Amino acid sequence: MEKKINITIFNENYHDSNDYCVRHYPNGMHNAIKKGLEVDPCFNITIATQDMEECGLTDEVINNTDVMFWWGHIKHNEVPDHIVNKVHQRVLKGMGLVVLHSGHFSKIFKKLMGTGCDLKWRCSNDKERFWCVNPSHPIANGIPQQFTLDQEEMYGEHFDIPAPDELVFISWFSGGEVFRSGCTFRRGNGKIFYFRPGHESCPSYNNEYVLKVLRNAAHWACPAEATFQHYGKFDSLENPEVQ
Amino acid sequence: MEKKINITIFNENYHDSNDYCVRHYPNGMHNAIKKGLEVDPCFNITIATQDMEECGLTDEVINNTDVMFWWGHIKHNEVPDHIVNKVHQRVLKGMGLVVLHSGHFSKIFKKLMGTGCDLKWRCSNDKERFWCVNPSHPIANGIPQQFTLDQEEMYGEHFDIPAPDELVFISWFSGGEVFRSGCTFRRGNGKIFYFRPGHESCPSYNNEYVLKVLRNAAHWACPAEATFQHYGKFDSLENPEVQ
Amino acid sequence: MEKKINITIFNENYHDSNDYCVRHYPNGMHNAIKKGLEVDPCFNITIATQDMEECGLTDEVINNTDVMFWWGHIKHNEVPDHIVNKVHQRVLKGMGLVVLHSGHFSKIFKKLMGTGCDLKWRCSNDKERFWCVNPSHPIANGIPQQFTLDQEEMYGEHFDIPAPDELVFISWFSGGEVFRSGCTFRRGNGKIFYFRPGHESCPSYNNEYVLKVLRNAAHWACPAEATFQHYGKFDSLENPEVQ
Amino acid sequence: MEKKINITIFNENYHDSNDYCVRHYPNGMHNAIKKGLEVDPCFNITIATQDMEECGLTDEVINNTDVMFWWGHIKHNEVPDHIVNKVHQRVLKGMGLVVLHSGHFSKIFKKLMGTGCDLKWRCSNDKERFWCVNPSHPIANGIPQQFTLDQEEMYGEHFDIPAPDELVFISWFSGGEVFRSGCTFRRGNGKIFYFRPGHESCPSYNNEYVLKVLRNAAHWACPAEATFQHYGKFDSLENPEVQ
Repeated sequence: MEKKINITIFNENYHDSNDYCVRHYPNGMHNAIKKGLEVDPCFNITIATQDMEECGLTDEVINNTDVMFWWGHIKHNEVPDHIVNKVHQRVLKGMGLVVLHSGHFSKIFKKLMGTGCDLKWRCSNDKERFWCVNPSHPIANGIPQQFTLDQEEMYGEHFDIPAPDELVFISWFSGGEVFRSGCTFRRGNGKIFYFRPGHESCPSYNNEYVLKVLRNAAHWACPAEATFQHYGKFDSLENPEVQ
Repeated sequence: MEKKINITIFNENYHDSNDYCVRHYPNGMHNAIKKGLEVDPCFNITIATQDMEECGLTDEVINNTDVMFWWGHIKHNEVPDHIVNKVHQRVLKGMGLVVLHSGHFSKIFKKLMGTGCDLKWRCSNDKERFWCVNPSHPIANGIPQQFTLDQEEMYGEHFDIPAPDELVFISWFSGGEVFRSGCTFRRGNGKIFYFRPGHESCPSYNNEYVLKVLRNAAHWACPAEATFQHYGKFDSLENPEVQ
Repeated sequence: MEKKINITIFNENYHDSNDYCVRHYPNGMHNAIKKGLEVDPCFNITIATQDMEECGLTDEVINNTDVMFWWGHIKHNEVPDHIVNKVHQRVLKGMGLVVLHSGHFSKIFKKLMGTGCDLKWRCSNDKERFWCVNPSHPIANGIPQQFTLDQEEMYGEHFDIPAPDELVFISWFSGGEVFRSGCTFRRGNGKIFYFRPGHESCPSYNNEYVLKVLRNAAHWACPAEATFQHYGKFDSLENPEVQ
Repeated sequence: MEKKINITIFNENYHDSNDYCVRHYPNGMHNAIKKGLEVDPCFNITIATQDMEECGLTDEVINNTDVMFWWGHIKHNEVPDHIVNKVHQRVLKGMGLVVLHSGHFSKIFKKLMGTGCDLKWRCSNDKERFWCVNPSHPIANGIPQQFTLDQEEMYGEHFDIPAPDELVFISWFSGGEVFRSGCTFRRGNGKIFYFRPGHESCPSYNNEYVLKVLRNAAHWACPAEATFQHYGKFDSLENPEVQ
């Protein structure tokens, strides 16, 4: 049987009790994402919300997570640094991280990127169309050459990130902008995927293609078996301890 | 005084006598490009058109060119293979190559890319907007964060090229498509820039930003001083001939 | 049950009857590779050698192959162009290709790369040590931070290839050279892996780590389910045929 | 006349009064680097050492610097965070940064990379040989295909950095290791070059090729004219303030 993948969905869970969010996500965005993921029997899914003790990200949760999803927006700064540092270390040791929408400004994403991660935005219900520019990438598996969300917040270039290792999707917005909306990065042993859609007042996490991309991303970001890497003083290749 | 750069502008020169082209380019597209480049006193510019003997690309012209611009469309297959092979070898030895618009399907571009170089297209005078995604790149120097051409042929993804070494511009089209419209590639010692605009019935080579990009690209693609690279049998580092 | 992967191992099969090769590979290099791959029950393996009719690469074989391994050396030019063109088209449509050792100079690799693919070489039984520079890459899965082959032909930089999409291994040679010895490229829908070791007079395809890399590469290069990509004239997104 | 480039050389200046350093660098490593750079009349050079007030990196110095060189080793943690943050912001706004040798573990490099930046090391006077893998890169201009330092500290892979945007040099060490020793990265509007050699007890900054690489890197990393990038709320492309 295929290996189980332990997934933790982190959500700020602040907008989720407001009408504009509830009408699309009656149980919160995290549960909409969970519902979309659990179609795949490989996934064991844990929910962590910012209102839980330790943001739901205890050492046990972090250490047992293979792939973490991260949704945050206006309470980024209230995630304590010691938790961000633990998640950062866990990514470098191999945990996958899927950063969603306004998570572009989260402490953890900025710490991993090293840049400002800023962009243009407009809340006016643009139409967003995703074009696949890397059709053989596993994250694009089963996704048509384009798909459209009728209503989304606009994010526009310049997106202040390092050049992605791989660019998978580019978004077109009806208001006239474009955005690198599906980007992969490797940091340490961890694989990171940034995926743009998911404004709190839009039903994007109910869209079948968005959810398929999230499932693909979880498989892609899942760490392989760990290989020992020696760092620090290295006397000699003849020393069997460091081979 | 700064070093002179020898530029050759190759044009198929087939559309250029038709009304749809003449109204924007009374002296052909090649002369519009020449006019835009010669603002820069560094450039020595030669014109080569496909109707000339050897397509204007004699050994002497090819060997003396630092940066070649290439516009072709419906007569790609009439460029003889022996000329394409000579241009290919010259690129690998260091010549810069700026491939324009429908040149995506030229023999030389396909030979350098190794892929099909296909794309979607539509002749319906879309509006095209260029967004810069790499603002510190020398090819984007002096270009605003976006500029717009009111009328262009649409090219849409998937564009079947290798992942560019650097992505500089992404185009937005009013009909709903996006395109990686400014892409760099290094092949051998040569630097290649693909730049999308320039349909024969649209006045894009009269646009100040398009021409500025072409001037920037010529400077970027110009070869540096050659460094000897030894290939083949290599006896030993102690052999002074191959150091 | 996991999906079967159809693998074809192409070998020039010219050196394989000579003593220097037979002593390490009594049934030819292709059968040593086959033996190393068939440990994995996912793989259906076909052998194609250059002495077979159509080089063993009939339309049926090519079209049914998910991942092709390619070993060639001094008879590259005797592989007919029409076969190379068919393999090239098949890669662009999604077939994986693992190019081995002196295959760097094969027609198919040069056609896919667009460059000269030249390098330095020396037949003097250098020691070669592989260092992993991308430990979370699936091709490095289960491979230690370094492994050593006591005896190999030297290949040295500059290796005249496009910058790889991903660099997985760098080789160190006892004579003083380095080489980018594990490189990935995507071309069209196909994934390509170049892996350096495998001189005909050295027992590298009997090495457990070399064979593990080959198995990993087959899994990595195997195409995902195909997604339709429309190329050519594209009237409108409203046309359901091209969605 | 060509534009002047304002360079600041930052040195920890801790080892520089010890015999092992003085014998190669009687006026400190920073002055050896300065001497190597000032051959080029384009450069205005300022020295900043960690023992100066504000580490020599006052707002005025930082704001007037086009390209900063950074050498640090055992006192990384004594550079105050508020200075690191200012240098980080300045890089994102366009300042070039050339990180030298043990600067791989500086706060500024780790903050820009987002990874651990760890590696293997050995102080045993290995021979180090630099192979150029990107001969048309401006940083390799005028550098032979390889050059050797007879005596250097070893740094070995895995080097825990993001995949470089461009790999220019790979080092071979006589003890058996390799290292990606010349790497470029773009972060925000800033260009970053990591260059490996420069142990405090080795005379590498007296080597003509090392110094040529540093001069090339200063030209490459120097910012072009700034282009306004709008970030944040973006009402419309029709708003002339944000064009």
